[in-house]
Amino acid sequence: MSFQKLDELGHRLEALGHALAILGADEATQMAVGGGEARAEAMATLAGMHHRMATAPEIADWIEAAQDEALNEDQAAALREFRRQHLNLTCLPPEFVERQMRTRMRCEQLWRDLRARNDWAGFQPALGGVVDLVREEAQLRAEALKLDPYDALMEQFDPGNRVADVGPVLEELKTFLVDFVPRAIDVQEKRLAKRPLKALSGTYPVDRQRELGLALMAAVGFDVTHGSLSVSHHPFCGGVPTDVRITTRYRTTEFLSALMGVLHETGHALYEQGLPREWAHWPLGKARGMAIHESQSLFVEKQIGRNPAFWTWALPMVERHLGEDWSLDDILPHVHRVERGLIRVDADEVTYPLHVILRFELEQDLVAGRLEVADLPEAWDARMQAYLGLSTIDNPADGPMQDVHWPSGAFGYFPSYTLGAMIAAQQWTAIEREHPDVSADFAEGRFDRVNDWRRERIWSQGSRWSTPELIERATGEPLNADHFRRHLEARYGG
Amino acid sequence: MSFQKLDELGHRLEALGHALAILGADEATQMAVGGGEARAEAMATLAGMHHRMATAPEIADWIEAAQDEALNEDQAAALREFRRQHLNLTCLPPEFVERQMRTRMRCEQLWRDLRARNDWAGFQPALGGVVDLVREEAQLRAEALKLDPYDALMEQFDPGNRVADVGPVLEELKTFLVDFVPRAIDVQEKRLAKRPLKALSGTYPVDRQRELGLALMAAVGFDVTHGSLSVSHHPFCGGVPTDVRITTRYRTTEFLSALMGVLHETGHALYEQGLPREWAHWPLGKARGMAIHESQSLFVEKQIGRNPAFWTWALPMVERHLGEDWSLDDILPHVHRVERGLIRVDADEVTYPLHVILRFELEQDLVAGRLEVADLPEAWDARMQAYLGLSTIDNPADGPMQDVHWPSGAFGYFPSYTLGAMIAAQQWTAIEREHPDVSADFAEGRFDRVNDWRRERIWSQGSRWSTPELIERATGEPLNADHFRRHLEARYGG
Repeated sequence: MSFQKLDELGHRLEALGHALAILGADEATQMAVGGGEARAEAMATLAGMHHRMATAPEIADWIEAAQDEALNEDQAAALREFRRQHLNLTCLPPEFVERQMRTRMRCEQLWRDLRARNDWAGFQPALGGVVDLVREEAQLRAEALKLDPYDALMEQFDPGNRVADVGPVLEELKTFLVDFVPRAIDVQEKRLAKRPLKALSGTYPVDRQRELGLALMAAVGFDVTHGSLSVSHHPFCGGVPTDVRITTRYRTTEFLSALMGVLHETGHALYEQGLPREWAHWPLGKARGMAIHESQSLFVEKQIGRNPAFWTWALPMVERHLGEDWSLDDILPHVHRVERGLIRVDADEVTYPLHVILRFELEQDLVAGRLEVADLPEAWDARMQAYLGLSTIDNPADGPMQDVHWPSGAFGYFPSYTLGAMIAAQQWTAIEREHPDVSADFAEGRFDRVNDWRRERIWSQGSRWSTPELIERATGEPLNADHFRRHLEARYGG
Repeated sequence: MSFQKLDELGHRLEALGHALAILGADEATQMAVGGGEARAEAMATLAGMHHRMATAPEIADWIEAAQDEALNEDQAAALREFRRQHLNLTCLPPEFVERQMRTRMRCEQLWRDLRARNDWAGFQPALGGVVDLVREEAQLRAEALKLDPYDALMEQFDPGNRVADVGPVLEELKTFLVDFVPRAIDVQEKRLAKRPLKALSGTYPVDRQRELGLALMAAVGFDVTHGSLSVSHHPFCGGVPTDVRITTRYRTTEFLSALMGVLHETGHALYEQGLPREWAHWPLGKARGMAIHESQSLFVEKQIGRNPAFWTWALPMVERHLGEDWSLDDILPHVHRVERGLIRVDADEVTYPLHVILRFELEQDLVAGRLEVADLPEAWDARMQAYLGLSTIDNPADGPMQDVHWPSGAFGYFPSYTLGAMIAAQQWTAIEREHPDVSADFAEGRFDRVNDWRRERIWSQGSRWSTPELIERATGEPLNADHFRRHLEARYGG
C-alpha cells in the first residue's frame, strides 16, 4: 500500500525526469536560438516540480510504513534507494537550497566572464561565497547522513565512497604517476626520434566522420534503435535509456578527437541502454553513480578504443569511410600520446589522474577549512609544479578558475573521473582473468564478451549496490590501484 | 491574492505544456524508433499531471475570489479565459473522461487497421461506441455551458461559434459551390485544351527543396531565431511560440506539395510567433481556436501562396534553388488546379469546403441522434453524390472511415477548416480595403503590410475575444461567405 504510493510517485518523477532529459538534449541540438529564455523557465519550473514532488513530507511516512509491508527482493532494494534519494534530497532546508542556488548561479555566470579575462581578483569573492556555502552544506549533509563532511558531499555522486577508502588508493596512484609521467614521456620521445609522428592532417568531411562514428558505435554495442548521434557544442550523452542522445563535434582537419569522443559517450550510452527496464521508474533503476558511469565510458574509450587490437580492426573502417590509409604504427602514437599540460579535459590517460588528484586534495582542504580561497592560486601552483612540473601562478584562468565544477558548487565530484579510470582497468583485469584472449576479439570487431560481462555485472545492476559493493561484486576485490598502474605500465612504460 | 495563485498555476501548466509540445515534436522528428513506449508513458503521465493540476478543486474558488480583486484589464481578460478553460476541462466527470479515452483509443487503433482493409462492418460497432459517448459528452457539456449539444462540442475548438450563426453561412457556401465546382472545372478544361499542363517532373534534391522552403518561410515572415524546419512523416506545426517546429516531407519528383505544405505550416507558425509573450503562461496568451488558426495557415498558403503576384517573385527563387525555369503560365495551372476527389486532405480550395460541409452536416445528425452509425455509408454516399458527383458506397475506407477525427472522438472540429478558409478570405478583403495595392507587395517579396495587419488584429490578441468577436473586430463585420465566394470566383471563375 505504501510501497504502491512510492511506485506511483516513481512514475510521476520518471515522467518529469524524462521530459527534463529530452528538453536538455533538445536545447543543445535542436532548439532555436531565441527559444532559450522560455526553455530555461520551463525547465526550472519542471525541476522545481520534480524536487517538490520528490521531497513531499508524506514520502518519509510511506518509506517508514513500507518497511513493514511484504516486499519481494526487488521492491526491498527499490525501497532502500527511495530512502537514500529522499534523505539526500531532504537533508538541506529549502531556504538553504535557494540561497545556495542563487550564489552558485551568480558565481557560474561571473566565472564565464572572468575566466576569459583571467581575472582572479574579481572572481575570488564569488568563489569564496560558494565555498562558505559548501562548507555549510557539507556540515548539514554530514549531520543528516552521519558521515564526515567531505564524505557526505561525495555520497551524492558515488554512494558508499569514503575518503578513508579512496584516499589511500588515489595517494598510491599519485606516488606512482609522479615518477611514471617523466618515464612515459621519455619512452615516447625515444620512439618518436626513431619514427616521427605522421601528421593527422587532411580533409575529413563531417558526414563521412559521422558515418564512421555511427559504424563504430554500433559495432561496440550501441543499440541504434534506442539512441542517436548528433552534433552539439559540448559533447554529451543525454536523453533516456530507451532513447540515448549522444553528441559530438567535428573538426574537418582531424578525425581522432571526434571519434574518441564518440567512443567515450558510447560507453556512457551502453550503461544507460543496459539498465534494467523493469526498474526504470525507481531510483533503483538508475545508473549507480558518476565513478561507475565514468568507468563505463573510459572502458570503451581507453580499454577498448586505445587497445592496439581494436585499431587492427578499426583502421580498415577508417580507410573505407575517410579514404585514409594508415598503418597501426602511424595511428598508435596518436592514440597513445602523452603530454604534460595545464588543462584537465585535454589530458591523456597518464597525466589526467594528477589533475584530478590535485583538485581532490585542494577541495578536501577547502571543505575542511584548512585552505582559504584567497590562497588557492599558490596552493594550485605548488601542486601543479610538484605533480606535473608546470606553473599556473601567472595564469589562474588555467589554474583554480579552470573548471566549472567549483563555481557551480560541485565539490566531491572530481575524484569520480579517476576512480572511473581505475575501475575500468580493474574490470578489464577481471574480464581478462575469465577470458584471457579477449583482446583478440577486438581485432575481429567482436565486443560481445566484454559487453556481456559488463551487462551482467554492471549495467543490469542499476543502483542495487553501493559503489564499493558494486566494484567488489563485479571484479572480486575492492578498488585497487594496481590494475590501472599495470595498464599504464604496459601501454606507456616501454 | 487569488489571481496570483492562478498566475502561478499558469506558470506550472505552461512548463508542462512546453514539455509536452517539445516532446511531441521530438517524437516525430528525433526520437529513436525504440523510444516510443517510454515516451508514450512519460507523455501520458505529464498530460495527466497537467489535467489534474488544471482541474484541481481549489481553482474554482480562486476564480471566484479573483472576481473581487482589483485587476487591470489584461488580468481581467486572463481571468475570463482561466474560467472558460476551467469550465471546459471540468464539465465532464473524471470517470466519464477515462471511459471515453479508452473507447476512443480502441476505436482509433482499430481504425488504423480496418481502414486499410476497407472493413466497415468490423469498424462500425467501435465507431458506434464512440458516437454513443459523444452524444453523452455533448449533453454533459451542453448542461454545464448552457449551450445546445453540438454548439457545446464546437465550443472546445472555436469559442463562441454557434450552429445558428455558422450553419447558414456554410449552407450558403454549399449552395454556391455545388454550382461553382462544375463551372470552375469547365473553365479549367477549356484553358488546358489551349495550353496543356506542363509536367512538374524532374529531380529536386531534398536539400535544395529545404533551402527553398526556408528562404520562402523567412521571406513571408517566419522568425528563424524562434523556430525551425525539419522532416516528419506527417507535416505539422508544433513546438512553442518561442521555438516553433515546422515539419514537411519531400518527394524528389515534384516540389510543389512540400513547398505548399511549408507555406501552410508557416501560416500557423506566424500566428504562434506573434502571440503576446507577456501572456504566454495564461490561457489568454494562447491562439484563439482552430478556425482562426486555420485562417492564418490558409492565409499564407492560399491568399499569399497561390496569388499570381507571389509567383512573380517566387519563380526566380525556384529557379535559383532548383534550377527549374518556369513561367507564370506554367506554374499557375498547377497552383490553381481544381479536381473532384474522394479525399479531403488532397482537395483543392474549391472542392475542399464540400468535404467539410458533408461532415459538418453528418456529425450534427449523429450527435442529435437523427442519424445512426449503421446508416453512415449511405448517408455519406448520398451527400458525396449530391455535392461532388462521386460515390463512396463500395468504398467506405474513403467514405465515413476516411478521417481520424471521428474514431478519435473529435466531433465539432471539421467546420473549423472551412471557417478558416472563409475567415482568411474575409481578412484579405479587409486588408485590400485598407491597402488596395497590397497584392503588388508580393511581386516584390514584401509581406510586411499583410503581416503588420494580422499581427495587430489577430496574432497579438491571443484569446482576448471569442471567435466571432475576433472576426468582427479584425474585419469590421461578422463572418460573411461573400468574401470567400468572390475570392473563388475571381481565381477560378474564368
